[in-house]
Amino acid sequence: MALRAAWRSQCALPGLLCQRSPVSSSAVHSRNSTSASSKMSVDFDKSTGVAVMRMKSLPVNSLSLDFLTEFCINLKKLEMDKSCRGLIITSSLPKVFSAGLDILEMYGKSPESCGEFWKAVQEMWLKVYSSNMVTIAAINGSSPAGGCLMSLTCDHRIMADNPRYSIGLNETQLGIVAPFWFKDTMVNTVGHRNTEMALALGLLYSPTEALKIGLVDQIVAEDKLMATSEQIMAKWLAVPDHARQITKSMMRKPTIDKLASNREADIQNFVSFITKDSIQKSLHMYLEMLKKRKA
Amino acid sequence: MALRAAWRSQCALPGLLCQRSPVSSSAVHSRNSTSASSKMSVDFDKSTGVAVMRMKSLPVNSLSLDFLTEFCINLKKLEMDKSCRGLIITSSLPKVFSAGLDILEMYGKSPESCGEFWKAVQEMWLKVYSSNMVTIAAINGSSPAGGCLMSLTCDHRIMADNPRYSIGLNETQLGIVAPFWFKDTMVNTVGHRNTEMALALGLLYSPTEALKIGLVDQIVAEDKLMATSEQIMAKWLAVPDHARQITKSMMRKPTIDKLASNREADIQNFVSFITKDSIQKSLHMYLEMLKKRKA
Amino acid sequence: MALRAAWRSQCALPGLLCQRSPVSSSAVHSRNSTSASSKMSVDFDKSTGVAVMRMKSLPVNSLSLDFLTEFCINLKKLEMDKSCRGLIITSSLPKVFSAGLDILEMYGKSPESCGEFWKAVQEMWLKVYSSNMVTIAAINGSSPAGGCLMSLTCDHRIMADNPRYSIGLNETQLGIVAPFWFKDTMVNTVGHRNTEMALALGLLYSPTEALKIGLVDQIVAEDKLMATSEQIMAKWLAVPDHARQITKSMMRKPTIDKLASNREADIQNFVSFITKDSIQKSLHMYLEMLKKRKA
Repeated sequence: MALRAAWRSQCALPGLLCQRSPVSSSAVHSRNSTSASSKMSVDFDKSTGVAVMRMKSLPVNSLSLDFLTEFCINLKKLEMDKSCRGLIITSSLPKVFSAGLDILEMYGKSPESCGEFWKAVQEMWLKVYSSNMVTIAAINGSSPAGGCLMSLTCDHRIMADNPRYSIGLNETQLGIVAPFWFKDTMVNTVGHRNTEMALALGLLYSPTEALKIGLVDQIVAEDKLMATSEQIMAKWLAVPDHARQITKSMMRKPTIDKLASNREADIQNFVSFITKDSIQKSLHMYLEMLKKRKA
Repeated sequence: MALRAAWRSQCALPGLLCQRSPVSSSAVHSRNSTSASSKMSVDFDKSTGVAVMRMKSLPVNSLSLDFLTEFCINLKKLEMDKSCRGLIITSSLPKVFSAGLDILEMYGKSPESCGEFWKAVQEMWLKVYSSNMVTIAAINGSSPAGGCLMSLTCDHRIMADNPRYSIGLNETQLGIVAPFWFKDTMVNTVGHRNTEMALALGLLYSPTEALKIGLVDQIVAEDKLMATSEQIMAKWLAVPDHARQITKSMMRKPTIDKLASNREADIQNFVSFITKDSIQKSLHMYLEMLKKRKA
Repeated sequence: MALRAAWRSQCALPGLLCQRSPVSSSAVHSRNSTSASSKMSVDFDKSTGVAVMRMKSLPVNSLSLDFLTEFCINLKKLEMDKSCRGLIITSSLPKVFSAGLDILEMYGKSPESCGEFWKAVQEMWLKVYSSNMVTIAAINGSSPAGGCLMSLTCDHRIMADNPRYSIGLNETQLGIVAPFWFKDTMVNTVGHRNTEMALALGLLYSPTEALKIGLVDQIVAEDKLMATSEQIMAKWLAVPDHARQITKSMMRKPTIDKLASNREADIQNFVSFITKDSIQKSLHMYLEMLKKRKA
C-alpha cells in the first residue's frame, strides 16, 4: 500500500516514464463559463458553441477512477447544454496528452475496485464515441494506451508534429491486452491489418508514422495546434447538426452496441484477467522499473 | 407546385448548381443495336460484348423516378442478353456525370410518391451492384450524391482528370443523410474511416483526391476516358465469366442482402425522414438558393 | 491416368509454369533438432526458440495432399514444444515459394479424394492462422494462389525484392474461385476493395506492388531475406507471449470460427464445384497448356 500510495499520482499506463515536470501555469481565460479542478479545466465559449477541455492532472494525465469520473461529469454537462456543439480535448501538461489508464487502479486492488475502475473506462469510451458534439483531440504530447483510446474516440485527431511524442495502443508491451472495443475502435480508424500489427507488437507511432496509417488525421507545428483545431472544428460545425449526428450514429452504433450490450461480461473478463498472479507480477515489474528509472 | 414544375427538369441533388448548358449533339452510331430516349441512349456492340450507356437527361442527369425506371429497364434488357458481358456507363452532357437524386421527387411530395421514388433508387442500386455484367463508370463530369452512388456501384471507376469535377456522397451538406446501403457501398470501397469523414462532412473530392482514397480507381485525361474504359473492360472480360461472377457475388452479397431483406423498412425510414417539416424546409432553402444563383 | 501420373509432381496451381529446375542442394545444419523429408525440412534452434521450415518439394512446392499432411504434422509438433515460439516458413527451391494447390489433386479425381484434399487445405489454414507461434513467411520466390494463402496466414510477410517474383490469389484466371476463407484472410490483410479487385481479376502482384497494397509487409534484397526475417522475428518475440497470443486470437477468431463451424459444408461446396464438367474442362485445358509450354 505504501508503494501504491507513493506512486499513485505518478504512474500511468504505459510506454511513458513518469516524470514530475514543472508545469507552466496555464492561464485559462473564460469568456463564458469555466469549470476547473486539479484534474481538468473546461472553458465554454458561447459565441462559438465550442468547449475546450484541458487535462492537467499531474504528472501525466493518467486516467484514474477519479479522473474518469470527473471527465464524464464534465462531458455530460456539456452534452446537456444544447448551445455546446463542439469539444476540443487537449492537455495543459508539457509533453504528454495522456499517459493512459492508471496502473495503480489495477495493481494490488480488490476485484471490486478493479471492476469499478473498468466500468469508468467503459463509460468514458461510450460517452465520447457516441457524443452528439463534434469532438476533436488536439494531441499535444505523448498518448499511449488509454490516451490513444481517448483520441481514437473523437471525431478528429490533430497531433503536434514533434518526433518525441508517440501514440499507440501499446498494452501488449506491458503484458496486458487491449479489450475488444479498443480493438474495434482502432480497426474502424486504421483498418484490420494495421490494427493487428499495432496491437500484437504494442507499437507506438511517431506523429509522422501515425499520420501515414491514419491513426491521426493531420499533424501541425505545436504552436499551431489549437488554432488548427479551431479551424477544423468550424468546418465540422458548418454541417447541419442533425445530419451529422445521424451519420455519426450510423457509423458507430454497431461498435457501441457490442460493448453496451455486454458491459458486465466485459468487466468480469477484465477483472479475472487483471487479478491473475502472472499479470499482477507483470505490473509489479513495470512499477519497479519505473521506480528505478526515477532513482 | 408552380415552383416545382418550373424546376422539375433543372434541379438535382446536390452540390452541383443547375445550369442549362448547351449540349453538343452526341452522335451515337450503333454498330449492332441502339435504344435511345430523351434520358439515355444504349449502344451494344455484339463484336465486343460491351454496351455503352450514355446518360443525356438535361440539364444534369438528375435521377428522377422516370430516369431510374428507364435505367433499370435498360439494364434488365442487357442483363438478359447473354451476349452482353460488359456495360460502360457515362454521360453525354458536358461537365456532369450525374448530379444525383432529383430533389423534386422529394420536395412537397406525398409519402406515397416519396416511397415509390425511393424504391426505384433501391432498385437501381440492387441491379447494378449485383450485375452479372462487368460494369465500368466512365465519370466524365461531376458526380455528387446519387451520381457518386451510381459510380460506386460499378466494378471499376475511371474519372476524367479535370479539377473542376468532383465526386462524393455530400448529402449532409444539404441536411439529409446517406442511408446505410450508400454507406456500406462506400465502406466497401474506401474503408470505414474515410467513409466516416466523407459522410459526416459531406465531402466532395477532386479527381486527384478521389484517387488518393480509392473513391475512383484511376484518373485519365478527359479525351482518353472512353478508350481507357474499353481497355480496362477488355482486361475484366479476359477473366472467365463464371469465376468472376461467383467472386463478385461472394464480395457483395452480404451487403446486398442487408437491403434486399429490409427494403420496406428502409422505404418507411426514408419517407418518415424526408417528409419531416424540418427536412422539407432544408430542401426548400436549397431550392431557393439554386433559384437565386440562376437569377 | 498416364497423363496425371506424368504430371503429378510437376503441376501446381496456377500462374506459374512448371519447370524442373536444378535445385542447389540446400545445406541444412541443425543446431538442435532437424526433421527432413523429400518435401520439407525443419530446423529448430533451441537457443532462439525459432524453427525454420524450408519447403523443397520438387519442382515447385505444390500443395499436394501428402505435402499438406506432412506440413500439418510438422506444425503440430512444433506447436506442442513449448520452447518453440516462432516459425519462419521459406523455400529451398529457386524462384518459387510455393506454386499453390496441386491441380492433380483436383483433376480427374473422385469426389471422395477431392474432399479429403480440401480438408487438408482447410487444416493447413486453420493451423497456421491460429498458431500460438509467431509465424513469418520469408517469400523467396513466386507465390500464387495457395502459396499466397499460406503467406497471408502468417503473422508477417517479407518478400525478396525480385521483380520476376509475383504473389496473389489468381484463381479466377484459371476459371476457379477462391473460397470465402481465402477471401476473408485477404480482406483482413489488404481491405475489401483491394480484395475485390484482386480476386475478380485474379491479379498477381510484383513485390513492389504487393508492398503498396499491404499484401506483404516489407521487401528486401533476396540475400538479406533470412537475416531480416530473423530480426523481425526477434521483434515479435520481445512481446510477452500470452499478451500477443490473446491479441492474435481476438483479431483472427471470428474469421477462423466462420470456417471451423462450417468445414463440412465448405468441403461439399468445393467438391460439387470442382467436379463439374465445365471446371474439369478448364483444368484440362490448363494442364494441356502447361504440357505444350514444356514441349
